[in-house]
Amino acid sequence: MDDATQPEDSPALRELYAGFEANHLKPLWTQIGNLMPRHPHPRAVAHVWKWSTLYPLAKSSGDLVPVGRGGERRAIGLANPGLGGNTYISPTMWCAIQYLGPRETAPEHRHSQNAFRFVVEGEGVWTVVNGDPVRMSRGDFLLTPGWNFHGHHNDTDHPMAWIDGLDIPFSFQNDVGFFEYGSDRVTDYSTPNLSRSERLWCHPGLRPLSGLQNTVSSPIGAYRWEHTDNALNQQLLLEEEGHPATVAQGHAAIRYVNPTTGGDVMPTIRAEFHRLRAGVETVTRREVGSTVFQVFEGKGAVVLEGTTHKVEKGDIFVIPSWVSWSLQAETTFDLFRFSDAPIMERLNFDRLKIEDDRQ
Amino acid sequence: MDDATQPEDSPALRELYAGFEANHLKPLWTQIGNLMPRHPHPRAVAHVWKWSTLYPLAKSSGDLVPVGRGGERRAIGLANPGLGGNTYISPTMWCAIQYLGPRETAPEHRHSQNAFRFVVEGEGVWTVVNGDPVRMSRGDFLLTPGWNFHGHHNDTDHPMAWIDGLDIPFSFQNDVGFFEYGSDRVTDYSTPNLSRSERLWCHPGLRPLSGLQNTVSSPIGAYRWEHTDNALNQQLLLEEEGHPATVAQGHAAIRYVNPTTGGDVMPTIRAEFHRLRAGVETVTRREVGSTVFQVFEGKGAVVLEGTTHKVEKGDIFVIPSWVSWSLQAETTFDLFRFSDAPIMERLNFDRLKIEDDRQ
Amino acid sequence: MDDATQPEDSPALRELYAGFEANHLKPLWTQIGNLMPRHPHPRAVAHVWKWSTLYPLAKSSGDLVPVGRGGERRAIGLANPGLGGNTYISPTMWCAIQYLGPRETAPEHRHSQNAFRFVVEGEGVWTVVNGDPVRMSRGDFLLTPGWNFHGHHNDTDHPMAWIDGLDIPFSFQNDVGFFEYGSDRVTDYSTPNLSRSERLWCHPGLRPLSGLQNTVSSPIGAYRWEHTDNALNQQLLLEEEGHPATVAQGHAAIRYVNPTTGGDVMPTIRAEFHRLRAGVETVTRREVGSTVFQVFEGKGAVVLEGTTHKVEKGDIFVIPSWVSWSLQAETTFDLFRFSDAPIMERLNFDRLKIEDDRQ
Amino acid sequence: MDDATQPEDSPALRELYAGFEANHLKPLWTQIGNLMPRHPHPRAVAHVWKWSTLYPLAKSSGDLVPVGRGGERRAIGLANPGLGGNTYISPTMWCAIQYLGPRETAPEHRHSQNAFRFVVEGEGVWTVVNGDPVRMSRGDFLLTPGWNFHGHHNDTDHPMAWIDGLDIPFSFQNDVGFFEYGSDRVTDYSTPNLSRSERLWCHPGLRPLSGLQNTVSSPIGAYRWEHTDNALNQQLLLEEEGHPATVAQGHAAIRYVNPTTGGDVMPTIRAEFHRLRAGVETVTRREVGSTVFQVFEGKGAVVLEGTTHKVEKGDIFVIPSWVSWSLQAETTFDLFRFSDAPIMERLNFDRLKIEDDRQ
Repeated sequence: MDDATQPEDSPALRELYAGFEANHLKPLWTQIGNLMPRHPHPRAVAHVWKWSTLYPLAKSSGDLVPVGRGGERRAIGLANPGLGGNTYISPTMWCAIQYLGPRETAPEHRHSQNAFRFVVEGEGVWTVVNGDPVRMSRGDFLLTPGWNFHGHHNDTDHPMAWIDGLDIPFSFQNDVGFFEYGSDRVTDYSTPNLSRSERLWCHPGLRPLSGLQNTVSSPIGAYRWEHTDNALNQQLLLEEEGHPATVAQGHAAIRYVNPTTGGDVMPTIRAEFHRLRAGVETVTRREVGSTVFQVFEGKGAVVLEGTTHKVEKGDIFVIPSWVSWSLQAETTFDLFRFSDAPIMERLNFDRLKIEDDRQ
Repeated sequence: MDDATQPEDSPALRELYAGFEANHLKPLWTQIGNLMPRHPHPRAVAHVWKWSTLYPLAKSSGDLVPVGRGGERRAIGLANPGLGGNTYISPTMWCAIQYLGPRETAPEHRHSQNAFRFVVEGEGVWTVVNGDPVRMSRGDFLLTPGWNFHGHHNDTDHPMAWIDGLDIPFSFQNDVGFFEYGSDRVTDYSTPNLSRSERLWCHPGLRPLSGLQNTVSSPIGAYRWEHTDNALNQQLLLEEEGHPATVAQGHAAIRYVNPTTGGDVMPTIRAEFHRLRAGVETVTRREVGSTVFQVFEGKGAVVLEGTTHKVEKGDIFVIPSWVSWSLQAETTFDLFRFSDAPIMERLNFDRLKIEDDRQ
Repeated sequence: MDDATQPEDSPALRELYAGFEANHLKPLWTQIGNLMPRHPHPRAVAHVWKWSTLYPLAKSSGDLVPVGRGGERRAIGLANPGLGGNTYISPTMWCAIQYLGPRETAPEHRHSQNAFRFVVEGEGVWTVVNGDPVRMSRGDFLLTPGWNFHGHHNDTDHPMAWIDGLDIPFSFQNDVGFFEYGSDRVTDYSTPNLSRSERLWCHPGLRPLSGLQNTVSSPIGAYRWEHTDNALNQQLLLEEEGHPATVAQGHAAIRYVNPTTGGDVMPTIRAEFHRLRAGVETVTRREVGSTVFQVFEGKGAVVLEGTTHKVEKGDIFVIPSWVSWSLQAETTFDLFRFSDAPIMERLNFDRLKIEDDRQ
Repeated sequence: MDDATQPEDSPALRELYAGFEANHLKPLWTQIGNLMPRHPHPRAVAHVWKWSTLYPLAKSSGDLVPVGRGGERRAIGLANPGLGGNTYISPTMWCAIQYLGPRETAPEHRHSQNAFRFVVEGEGVWTVVNGDPVRMSRGDFLLTPGWNFHGHHNDTDHPMAWIDGLDIPFSFQNDVGFFEYGSDRVTDYSTPNLSRSERLWCHPGLRPLSGLQNTVSSPIGAYRWEHTDNALNQQLLLEEEGHPATVAQGHAAIRYVNPTTGGDVMPTIRAEFHRLRAGVETVTRREVGSTVFQVFEGKGAVVLEGTTHKVEKGDIFVIPSWVSWSLQAETTFDLFRFSDAPIMERLNFDRLKIEDDRQ
């Protein structure tokens, strides 16, 4: 801010400012530079959480913290170091590691916040969504869109951990959230291999005539690793054969979508899976909105504002709005990604800047 | 028309009418009853073609008629008996049986007319769509949306027949068609099991990041029988287990859709597959727009304006606009269906009347 | 068609063809060149009807032909010379001159066909649309979207004529039409200056909170000449002042739209008004779909496939699909235009070719 | 939260929690009740600001605070008492009173934040939006959608004040804002009665052919009081005549819309104007999202969670998410309203609860 245009101090000015304060008013001229920066200037910072740190803490929680009604979930939120007292991985998104011990049940509830789970390792838990039991296994991406009852239970004798993603910060900041308790147990303890949602909806290009109404969120409960892996492999094979299929040389990627519209799985959250061949580097880019990656397999690095961070299986990193980033694959490098891009696009705030064109 | 309002004959009136004729004019008052009936009064009639008649004629054509540039296709169109001189199965739709002998090639061309193929029996032909070879096998539904180059070749020593559906009548009546010759051969004689379009697009709920632009027509070249059959089976199983999945008791059905939008595969043609359990009867309905069915498997009947027609594998029948119809399944009854419903819906002319509620 | 690929005549072939005919079948190979031309090859022809011919014939009809239930309307349709026995100005559109004598009433009815009226001269008739009396005056564009009851009455002692545009041919060809009689008189003989639809909807940029549901067709009953004329004048003034406002130098134009969507007024019919400064020529273009113009004021010419036709106030001309056309303004040249463009665009058949770039 | 499910304190638990803190993690189980309440539980509070307080403070600022580059605007923001240190009237919206002295200029800039102005009294200022001078007068609603350059100048010898509304809090919280300086003066000091945007776009139901591309925000720079007042009057007159036109008995209302789509004027802000007849009370409702009213004329009250607040001309009040509210009109009661409803609807968080049905 240019001080030349600031008023000179005087008793009258001090009286004016006191009048402002007494009447719940604040001048724009003293704060515009902060409130309206030249480009996004997030308080959230880029940060990497190591799986080798996260998992032991989750395991220890399993020993010490009960799961049940009230606390609801044994979930440990990743709190962006720049966002002070809040458990927000970014201003809009929540990310947590959730842990369920052998034979445990997390009770049913529902909320208007949109939620997903992604499984970096393990199996044996079923999440029951509106009464439909959905198996959770390594590589699966699972949905619990807003206002669907859901609980989880571990059908095995070993614990299981996964990550949860939600729009809790956005919902909290903007006062949009509703919450309701359901059953203290899950309503169906059966353990089918495929959920009913998949049996109805997961046939490529085929839509049930009983499901012709478009839905706000995807009706698919689980996007299975088998399909994701196959889709990425096919893209790389097609590329090898000389056909357009990848987003960039050596870089396969899919977006999880709502089959009734072809659009994002939920109104506030985009989810994707990326596979880079060993040696591939992406271009450096800046985007409006925040994004989170979890390394699923392989080794590589993320370059955040010019600083290289090595990452490997399970590691999670957040990229706040307009922070420059690129990925580098040391081995074949598989990454799950989620972001608030649907918020940005639906409100027309999305912007992209490619900083170079290496790729 | 109420004759009370018709003008009395007189020399002056005859002079007036002569003036109309000389100047390319016609009065509404003498024709409104015909032009604007109380409800659709199609010239097209409901009609059944027997596969047992169609196939031998196609086979005989295979012996007598060459296939190549100029004639383009050995396709025999089903001409609605009510539509006089035109090879239209309905005012909007074309349906033909196409026959390709051992090792024959139908040369490449493209046209703005939208086309599909459906295979009631046989295998061994590949249709090459914009250079992508697409295997054709029993139960497969294959797309050639407008303005895509395509040719066919039979890779085997036995002949193969299938049905073609296009919007030729609509395009011809409304003067929208463009046509261009391509290669006299097909551009790729390889015979992969899966087309590149399937390898890129047929992963349930997954969209390639290289394909984020919505497309007017589906990018999927082939909807495989394996998936259709599985989807229908799952609907019936879910119904048995007590969950909503079918359109009516004992009636499973899917719509083939464009994965980029969840909507119809092409702008003018809807395609569906229906499976009725033995003994099931559908409600009787009337719809605006014309529809065509081909029996894929099983035995049953279609009731058209109260008249029952027995039909079996391969038989094709057309239901013109606002003709009442219902289906009756003697055995498990599988039917492929296509119609001009997207035209009706996009132009807001669609109407449905359920005549009873047996089902 | 290349005769080289046609089968040689033989008894067997003749038997085959007889089999086709007996079974309501026709080969594609003998007709593809006609059915699927290289570009639209309309049977409809470009044609000009002179107002100086039309109006006297309408007036004579007023003397000889009663108006009332059964004949419904004293409307004389313009029959495209290329379309044989049908009163179609094009394959999709109907255009008629309608004439109502002093104190006459055209009875109420409704139909699924979409209709509009445009008034090239005169005043004194009110069209009553679903009970809302709508004044008709020179330059006004008036809507009767599908399935709205409507009748007309002449409140004066002088006759009045105007043109009607409908999608009757499209509806008839595709069997989509429904029709119902209403009152034999109009339901409201009051003669307000503004219809209720205008009082509710004609406030620029303002939408009633009681009308937040989008409607298939525009809720506006009358688009007044005062607004059209002002909009066109402002475009030309802005152009003079150096600001972008016109579609081309000296060529102002507006589209009549549905205020709930910003799109076309009805699902099948586009309507526009064009004003060319004296001396202006438009580029030559070809478009898929058929279009009709009526000269509202001034003198000029239309060039159709290279042939120049002089036209003046009231003259009507039709341009079939893919016929090249341009306009030339001798004086300030005002033209009303309607077309089937929404059909073409909604079904993705629209194409445009600019033949030159004079403008 | 049910303490029964909270872990018991122990050295191990304290070590676990220290591990969380050291690694930027926080457990969900200790905070879920706060983060995910049963229904929105806004920190923002309902509050009324009196114009009789606001205006004198603005006037005093006019004496003491210069306007120019750096401070940019002499705008005093209304700071919700519940939102601590921030000048937010709600979590999403900014509202300020802006004051421009005789012959002063507020320099040009642009930002991605969407902005509008509403004029409760006065005249004489022109806001110049992308070079188009837009007159500001009592009752006018004026737009400056994101990324349009704009400055203001007072062309008279008397001061003028108005309110500004923007999505600054939403943009700041979510890191989406960009800002750029423009000219230190405005680029056009002319003072036309109508802006170019109005001359091109403010013709009811008419769309310029030069403007067929839909725009993210409305292209209209000013919605004039004359039109708003007329629209509201017509609704009440139509109601008197027995026709549906108002939202409830005695309650006329319009929404300001983007004429290219019929939707909201900007992606994040809805704006409406409401007129209640004397004596009318609205139903009590709760809505997700925050809304702000300014009384334009008349006297009445707003009931906020059961507490009645008398309000009159110029008074501004905010209703946070899910706070119950109703309006009571003592005299004819005119109110301008804006809200974040487009955010809620585009992200599918909108909910409405009618608490009674008095109206």
